[in-house]
Amino acid sequence: MTELTRDIIIQRLKNLGVDMNGAIEALKNPSMTMPLRTLSNAYFDEKDRLIKLGDKTQTRTFFNVGQAKKFMQTSLVAAGIKQLLEQNKPAISTRQLYYILKHTIEGSKENTFDDQKTETDPVIEDVEVTIDVLREQLGLEATPDGVIAGPLVYEDMKTNDIINCAKLGSAGAAIPPNTENHVVNFKECSADYILVVEKFAVWNLLNQERYWKKNNCLLMTGKGQASRSARRLLARISKELKIPVYIFTDMDAYGYYIYSVYKQGSINLAFFSEKAGCPDAKYIGLKTKDIKRFDIPKTNWIEMNDLDYKRIKEIQNYDWFKNKAWQAELKALKDFKYKVESDSLVSKSIDFTSKVYLPTIIDNKDFIV
Amino acid sequence: MTELTRDIIIQRLKNLGVDMNGAIEALKNPSMTMPLRTLSNAYFDEKDRLIKLGDKTQTRTFFNVGQAKKFMQTSLVAAGIKQLLEQNKPAISTRQLYYILKHTIEGSKENTFDDQKTETDPVIEDVEVTIDVLREQLGLEATPDGVIAGPLVYEDMKTNDIINCAKLGSAGAAIPPNTENHVVNFKECSADYILVVEKFAVWNLLNQERYWKKNNCLLMTGKGQASRSARRLLARISKELKIPVYIFTDMDAYGYYIYSVYKQGSINLAFFSEKAGCPDAKYIGLKTKDIKRFDIPKTNWIEMNDLDYKRIKEIQNYDWFKNKAWQAELKALKDFKYKVESDSLVSKSIDFTSKVYLPTIIDNKDFIV
Repeated sequence: MTELTRDIIIQRLKNLGVDMNGAIEALKNPSMTMPLRTLSNAYFDEKDRLIKLGDKTQTRTFFNVGQAKKFMQTSLVAAGIKQLLEQNKPAISTRQLYYILKHTIEGSKENTFDDQKTETDPVIEDVEVTIDVLREQLGLEATPDGVIAGPLVYEDMKTNDIINCAKLGSAGAAIPPNTENHVVNFKECSADYILVVEKFAVWNLLNQERYWKKNNCLLMTGKGQASRSARRLLARISKELKIPVYIFTDMDAYGYYIYSVYKQGSINLAFFSEKAGCPDAKYIGLKTKDIKRFDIPKTNWIEMNDLDYKRIKEIQNYDWFKNKAWQAELKALKDFKYKVESDSLVSKSIDFTSKVYLPTIIDNKDFIV
Repeated sequence: MTELTRDIIIQRLKNLGVDMNGAIEALKNPSMTMPLRTLSNAYFDEKDRLIKLGDKTQTRTFFNVGQAKKFMQTSLVAAGIKQLLEQNKPAISTRQLYYILKHTIEGSKENTFDDQKTETDPVIEDVEVTIDVLREQLGLEATPDGVIAGPLVYEDMKTNDIINCAKLGSAGAAIPPNTENHVVNFKECSADYILVVEKFAVWNLLNQERYWKKNNCLLMTGKGQASRSARRLLARISKELKIPVYIFTDMDAYGYYIYSVYKQGSINLAFFSEKAGCPDAKYIGLKTKDIKRFDIPKTNWIEMNDLDYKRIKEIQNYDWFKNKAWQAELKALKDFKYKVESDSLVSKSIDFTSKVYLPTIIDNKDFIV
């Protein structure tokens, strides 16, 4: 894989304009062809075990009443991003790009953009997929969330700081807004695996117990549903540092889904999912059979409501939950009628998770995959 | 101020039980008297310029059909916290404490607690105010959020790591879940002031520009409405490191309110507000008069809706917004009819905030206080 340098990215953006210019000079209708980002063009790739974007495309032309505005907006976004990259400006948010590009078109009362969510954001995604580059590589960063602790050292290429994730106290290392390799440059990692926990409370307890030190692993939380940069960081750790990924969530449909987003991605961000998935991730969270096995007290059980059952049904139908193990687990959960939170295990004892639960599952390789 | 050691806290918890025991031995009705946490007992202290809890109290007795369960719950919470502190256990979340204390009472089908939000949480707050100790000091930590960068070095007393907030790259230093002095021990700080920005996108841009280095300050964001530990960290920086606090939010009622929560606290967490406020904080965000002065383009203006006007009206009536400067600003905002986001200033130029806006306001001391 060639490394995606800033020069290559600028060149790809330039090519969009070169193609357009060629058409104009040849007195043809300028057009842009790009992958279709609709749900119908997203699919689960059985071989790579990732959600991907299919190969359907769409063409946007300038001389078309229905497409002219979007064509103009796409050109503006591509040109704006290119300019910021060329000038080596700091990364901004997609909302900030919206404000930069929004202006009233001379001689009219029409704005280039009037809304971020419905106008700039989709066009930014179009540009991403067209030139096959993530928005973070285009200098557009999202708000990150989550922390990581353990024997991982990286260099932050923006600031040249060396970050030792084993030395950052009870806070842990904040996951930066951009975890692409032009920012996060892995230096050292002696960890045997990475444990990702859904909830901060679980991370906080394990971190205070120095679980990652005693078990020579990395310990990360995305604080619920993971942010983009947390997902990319995990994908890069899995792929580049080649260590197993274990994901510990609540025992309910929402927890299982969080696991699946880390692992296979999501349909509505299929292009990102291809690059942010960890197809080898293993589910280490509670399974219905663990309730009996570990004698989890009934006071931890929460009766499922209609929404929980509805969500189970939805998940049962996702292609990436279609394997035997998950179908059995989803059915067992439905029959069990209760869900159990990962942070509730303290009722057994404060160190039950670190001393009993996790070692038992890991030693017996009792994951769901 | 005597330092609140673990021993002192345990002693205060013990005293609750000693008083009760005394009553039992004297064949009297055991009771607990505690500050009333109702909104009617919260007020704005003009002198200290902080929201505080008043001196009304309530008494909970055991032989009282309406109070017996709550009496039992309060005893359980106090005893449970005391035990965890005595055993020097890691801090947990209030939800985890709920799971630890929840059990079925022997010989009955009654649970000690059935709900966290309505049962354990209020009782934990009762215990906090009764013994005048914050929940973080009781080993109950909330999920933190936010990051900080700049010339501040602290020792994490839980792990003995030295955290240098100037060396943590594009991520910044994560704000830990507990920023009390038994965890965060300030070592060095050469900063001239601390700038708190509402939005991560603004923090991210200023951090990439190394604003804090060029201006010798600390740069923090709570990512919107601040978490408990971010508020306490700011209060401690203000009080102990004695540097000015500048708060940069959106120009709208929500932004002004975020500023006021950092500064004076909030009514529904009055007990916490006394300890987490920064009465000397200054508002450095956009004011309505700055729109003209800095020629902020109309494409940045967002027309206010009914909710915005409603929120302005509410804020106008808060005692801590009753000074002349704020009343004038709130009226001006209402008349202006538009709000402006702090992250939108990039439309002037990427470095407008760092090179023009902030230096102008700081040099001219053009804050609202």
